[in-house]
Amino acid sequence: MIKANNPQLKSWIPTKADSDFPIQNLPFGIFKNGDDHTGAASAIGDFVIDLKTLYDLGYFDGLSLPKEVFSKNTLNEFIGLGKETTRKVRERLSDLLEVSNTELQHNEAVRSSVFIPMDQVQMLLPVHIGDYTDFYSSEQHAYNVGCMFRDPDNALMPNWKHIPVGYHGRASSIAVSGTDFHRPKGQTIAPDAQAPAFGPTKRLDFELEMGFITGKANPLGASIPVAEADEYIFGFVLFNDWSARDVQKWEYVPLGPFLAKNFFSSVSPWIVTMDALEPFQVPGPVQDPQVLPYLELPDRKNFDVNLKVFIQPEGSEEKQVSHSNFKHMYWNVNQQLAHHTANGCNINVGDLYASGTISGPTPEAYGSMLELAWMGTKPIPMPDGTERKFIHDGDTVIMRGYAEKDGVRIGFGEVRNKVLPTL
Amino acid sequence: MIKANNPQLKSWIPTKADSDFPIQNLPFGIFKNGDDHTGAASAIGDFVIDLKTLYDLGYFDGLSLPKEVFSKNTLNEFIGLGKETTRKVRERLSDLLEVSNTELQHNEAVRSSVFIPMDQVQMLLPVHIGDYTDFYSSEQHAYNVGCMFRDPDNALMPNWKHIPVGYHGRASSIAVSGTDFHRPKGQTIAPDAQAPAFGPTKRLDFELEMGFITGKANPLGASIPVAEADEYIFGFVLFNDWSARDVQKWEYVPLGPFLAKNFFSSVSPWIVTMDALEPFQVPGPVQDPQVLPYLELPDRKNFDVNLKVFIQPEGSEEKQVSHSNFKHMYWNVNQQLAHHTANGCNINVGDLYASGTISGPTPEAYGSMLELAWMGTKPIPMPDGTERKFIHDGDTVIMRGYAEKDGVRIGFGEVRNKVLPTL
Repeated sequence: MIKANNPQLKSWIPTKADSDFPIQNLPFGIFKNGDDHTGAASAIGDFVIDLKTLYDLGYFDGLSLPKEVFSKNTLNEFIGLGKETTRKVRERLSDLLEVSNTELQHNEAVRSSVFIPMDQVQMLLPVHIGDYTDFYSSEQHAYNVGCMFRDPDNALMPNWKHIPVGYHGRASSIAVSGTDFHRPKGQTIAPDAQAPAFGPTKRLDFELEMGFITGKANPLGASIPVAEADEYIFGFVLFNDWSARDVQKWEYVPLGPFLAKNFFSSVSPWIVTMDALEPFQVPGPVQDPQVLPYLELPDRKNFDVNLKVFIQPEGSEEKQVSHSNFKHMYWNVNQQLAHHTANGCNINVGDLYASGTISGPTPEAYGSMLELAWMGTKPIPMPDGTERKFIHDGDTVIMRGYAEKDGVRIGFGEVRNKVLPTL
Repeated sequence: MIKANNPQLKSWIPTKADSDFPIQNLPFGIFKNGDDHTGAASAIGDFVIDLKTLYDLGYFDGLSLPKEVFSKNTLNEFIGLGKETTRKVRERLSDLLEVSNTELQHNEAVRSSVFIPMDQVQMLLPVHIGDYTDFYSSEQHAYNVGCMFRDPDNALMPNWKHIPVGYHGRASSIAVSGTDFHRPKGQTIAPDAQAPAFGPTKRLDFELEMGFITGKANPLGASIPVAEADEYIFGFVLFNDWSARDVQKWEYVPLGPFLAKNFFSSVSPWIVTMDALEPFQVPGPVQDPQVLPYLELPDRKNFDVNLKVFIQPEGSEEKQVSHSNFKHMYWNVNQQLAHHTANGCNINVGDLYASGTISGPTPEAYGSMLELAWMGTKPIPMPDGTERKFIHDGDTVIMRGYAEKDGVRIGFGEVRNKVLPTL
């Protein structure tokens, strides 16, 4: 067991039972506290932990960290140090916070400068994203979409169970939780129309996804073996792959989604390390037909992470509309990364890979409005008496995620965005 | 007329009549001269012009350029200064090189440090590419592919004449001319097979494209009007969108090309400014049906740029296999950029946008082996007695481009890559 994951660990900083950030989590992010203080942080309970200040005070002495590594406005340099080093930082944080350790606990002056209440800071995008890839790895989602647009007997494409299907997305328009955006415009075509029209999308949707971020690069031409992919994956975030379904339908044949997706995507601010999720590994689904050898992972694993989606209409309360789980992936992250690089494609530190919509096997576990309201045929009632087929202006969509076991809850916080009217 | 484009200009540096780099061109690139000297350059005749040294010697005084702007290993900061400034630099270079100007001409000591023979330096990737988009804007190419995979009566998709179809590609695997690469592996399926196999692609192909690079960003949520797109486009390069056709065929439905493309793409090292190409604007094709208002450009323009592809088998001579032209684009670059941002997608300085394969109306003007050898049915003879349906190991593929008018030739140099055997 990774020492920092021990369920028995207690911190001298009190954390509530339902906190996303107990001592066993210790995720990494970038925070801004006022105009002139931006840097790397971890989290415990309701506090961010200012890593720059801890570094300056010498609490990381002996870990051979580069100067200023926590003073940047992204985590790229830090996570690029490699897992051996980032793991030591997480372990050191765990030690400092552990109830029997007095180094920080008994230093009141330092504590107030290192622990800052979360509600006083702004969280920023945690990494500079070089390239962003979106996979399509939930069988239920692919099946649902196939049923809608083709038929249940041929719902999955012939390649789907052989290839972790994916495509490249837009990195520039990925923003952090809390960023609002305007309803996008685009070309759409009415069912019986001869020509398309241009205007605000009428079918704005979310997609419930998880994303992983790589912390290690491979050179162009070299492939990452499926069993070694762990070494390249630093951690995970929640991901909302906002989509305009009517735009997508008209544009996506033959080269895939483009303007239907690239107007905006969003991530949760905290990167939960792959290490912290290690206790929540569960077996993946049986893969039949057998996958090709370069995708074979004897120790195949998924992660048991509860995922929930809420819609909050303007001026109303939030309502849970989905409860899915990351364990429902057909293709796991090792397979995704092995496939991505099987042709020699190079990856970089800070690249982001999203799972594709994660739909569970039952209707309440579907991961998009397209599926939850089944193409508009099953509208979802809201607390204010309205109903939703897709997302309205003024709606806030919130995704939350957490793993839970042995009394330990490893949470992701949330990714939250409000939809503003078209500009 | 832009002053630096005047066909009457002569330089005191002799340039051959067929040089790509007369005084009217003055492109920008990044060069490396030995281990410790990397920086921005322009070109004239057979020389690179060391802009860092010119700057340090005070030749750009009065242009208010930031310190060290020419000392970087990319042009991003320079082109991000905006067209007003980059235009002044090109004009200043034009003045310095003009035959009646004696500032540099009569300073032998300085001349030898500023002008370096091209064959002594290495050219690097000119920009850090944030996001890369590939369009699909040549009607003949889309028609040819449609004929092969569907039928001539329904060759173009219903959306093709309404949308400048495009998709996101991989930025990390774009390299500069001169970079060799290994034949990629991938999943393919034989015509009668039940399951796919994994191995080296048997259908490695080039795609003859042009790319443009943006020099100005727009904020997320804001669109670039079609008539203003010029302001955002700094210049052009040659682009080879290397493709594995057998991988592409198996993977691309429904989300588009992924591993069939992202193993490697290549660009020519010199960015020819949009300003330098201004004299070569020609009317675009008639667009019927009429495009939607956000794509209407009353002064629609293409660029008359000759494009040629050569194959050089290992140990043999090169053979020209294609002669196309950038003027054959159905959708122009203004329309591409207006469409790309119509939904509020943000672009950044240094982003790259490729045209898609540029196939002219006659078979010798097709821009890929898929089309030139028509799916392998019309093999192309090589100088060494072999023939080509697709690209073999050991082959070097070279693309060259130039515009020519009034005795002035504005060239792009070349993009050249050799295919090495699978690793």
